[in-house]
Amino acid sequence: MQPYFREKFGNPQSLHSIGQQASEAIEKARDKVAKLINAESSEIFFTSSGSEANNFALKGLTLAHQKKGKHIVLSAIEHQSVLNAAKFLEKLGFTVTHVPVDNFGLIDPEDVRKALTPDTILVSIMLANGEVGTIEPLEEISGICRSQDILLHTDAVDAVGNMPVDVKTLGVDALSLAGNQFYGPKGSAALFIKKGKRILPFIDGGIQEGGRRAGTEDVPAIVGMGKAAEIALQHMADRVEKTEALRDKLITHILDKIEHTILTGHPEKRLAYHASFCVEFVEGESMLLNLDMQGIAAASGSSCTSRALKASHVLLAMGLDHALAQSSLVFSMIDSTTTEDIDYLLDVFPPIIEKLRKMSPLYTQYLEEKEK
Amino acid sequence: MQPYFREKFGNPQSLHSIGQQASEAIEKARDKVAKLINAESSEIFFTSSGSEANNFALKGLTLAHQKKGKHIVLSAIEHQSVLNAAKFLEKLGFTVTHVPVDNFGLIDPEDVRKALTPDTILVSIMLANGEVGTIEPLEEISGICRSQDILLHTDAVDAVGNMPVDVKTLGVDALSLAGNQFYGPKGSAALFIKKGKRILPFIDGGIQEGGRRAGTEDVPAIVGMGKAAEIALQHMADRVEKTEALRDKLITHILDKIEHTILTGHPEKRLAYHASFCVEFVEGESMLLNLDMQGIAAASGSSCTSRALKASHVLLAMGLDHALAQSSLVFSMIDSTTTEDIDYLLDVFPPIIEKLRKMSPLYTQYLEEKEK
Repeated sequence: MQPYFREKFGNPQSLHSIGQQASEAIEKARDKVAKLINAESSEIFFTSSGSEANNFALKGLTLAHQKKGKHIVLSAIEHQSVLNAAKFLEKLGFTVTHVPVDNFGLIDPEDVRKALTPDTILVSIMLANGEVGTIEPLEEISGICRSQDILLHTDAVDAVGNMPVDVKTLGVDALSLAGNQFYGPKGSAALFIKKGKRILPFIDGGIQEGGRRAGTEDVPAIVGMGKAAEIALQHMADRVEKTEALRDKLITHILDKIEHTILTGHPEKRLAYHASFCVEFVEGESMLLNLDMQGIAAASGSSCTSRALKASHVLLAMGLDHALAQSSLVFSMIDSTTTEDIDYLLDVFPPIIEKLRKMSPLYTQYLEEKEK
Repeated sequence: MQPYFREKFGNPQSLHSIGQQASEAIEKARDKVAKLINAESSEIFFTSSGSEANNFALKGLTLAHQKKGKHIVLSAIEHQSVLNAAKFLEKLGFTVTHVPVDNFGLIDPEDVRKALTPDTILVSIMLANGEVGTIEPLEEISGICRSQDILLHTDAVDAVGNMPVDVKTLGVDALSLAGNQFYGPKGSAALFIKKGKRILPFIDGGIQEGGRRAGTEDVPAIVGMGKAAEIALQHMADRVEKTEALRDKLITHILDKIEHTILTGHPEKRLAYHASFCVEFVEGESMLLNLDMQGIAAASGSSCTSRALKASHVLLAMGLDHALAQSSLVFSMIDSTTTEDIDYLLDVFPPIIEKLRKMSPLYTQYLEEKEK
């Protein structure tokens, strides 16, 4: 990315040679991002975030096809950028159906089929959930959508770069991805739109991104995402294998060492890097702050809403009650995570929980009731 | 910006300390950007480009106030991101009036007043035009809007950081700016929204930017824009004085040395860094390529549409004919531009024009007619 901040700072739309350099760099990055998901370069449209890509997909596809119908189908556990983009569309007269999930956060493709009406123009189901790690049965869902000529978008922000993703196998018409989810820079993301599928621009203006996304391109960010995509593709098998082993070790030991702890999301159909739990009688925020003091960065639900401190809509949709949903915790294994890191976490975590539970009125109440 | 790529890479919405670091960095940058335009920090909302800020303003303000009316007033020379966002709104039932400009690209505030109807909810007039450099009489326009309780947005992308801009003096309700226009990084921009003014989010999703602009914040870009804003404020007087002197030298000598050349835009009310011309009988693109071979990076119209190679809507609105509009050329003086650079340009440019005119059928025709 570095040269594109200073020496090669041209505007890719400028006709002079420093502009051309920038333009060529963008096209190289586009190739790399396309390869990562087995798409054509011309099917990749850069955006500034996964949320923007989701807004672009939801709003752009529905507004381009609204003559055909005005009904959208989502899952109940989509990211806020999908759910809230759909809320915006409801104000414009669209109707939205939310398909439920089971206790593992898994969507039943038959529920998607049942939700479809003659008025349905778009289904948007995420590939993998960032809060509970569950990977959804997209191929079966895409088969259903294709057979009824309904567009399928998938929010693959938490998946792309961390598991093999192939738009052709998945059979999707649009797919959102974000560079900062696979070691690329913030501000780098993209929407895949299958060739021939009509979509309205989301940012109206100049002719950048084939007239579909206006605004001066963020060349360094795009270059960075291109490189990250190249690395992800080269090391995919290693990355998955390594994080999966760490994840499984972490899950096994946490469930074993700390009672009243449950794994959230699906035990097998889950992201290789993702371990998520509910730790009964303890608030997510307290765990985060105590872990942070030990040098461990964890999350509780989606970081896009963490400061709102509300119970996660994902956990509630999976049937957890509010109290349990407030006790959620997410660990992500990254490329640099080691077995020693996991051992350290397994050492420091149980005492933290013990301490927090001693201070928890809910836990005291539980113990008292147990004694009766 | 550098530390925020690696050591301080946290997500600002995360509750752990590397998230907090990033969050604090963003708020510091917000203060600096606010100071540059004499706004409050809470009135600054980061976006990824000036085009996004313009889309946010146009769509967000109108959709939030559509119960009051559905009429919008723009100038004929707005940036494509304003014009095309308004076209999108027309599809949703809004009506748009375009106020004309004079031969200098100047808007008459009385024309704005005449365009207002009881149904008008928003006026969007740029502060300065990036293609011809003209600075518009925003204060008079804001007086008119305020007296009729109509919202005023200004696209100040080409102005902020390069001339003193004060949102309180201007009296605007919303203002777009972009970091890459004043030596900040690409991907950094912001919308100022006056406290208390309602606006719908443009990117729906999480709670970032007070719930008004979802998506993981581009921390390095924001930090970079903050620093650029700080530098711009400190060196504003020098920056204006220096580029203005170079600009005036360039304009005087080009008009003097090359016949059939006209200055576009206003001779006095123009951006300090901006010199723009039409060079009769010569195509803009040919000039750019020939200048580029001499190491000079120039533009012809807006870079957001330069590759479309269409005559600029700005020049046409100013009353130039298509042939003349195709012969436009824009030079920007930057902080590192020297008197020697201008001398060099004045040396190499006239022979380029002579060469190109020799090859021009239009010029041959002109000479033949002159001889008759």
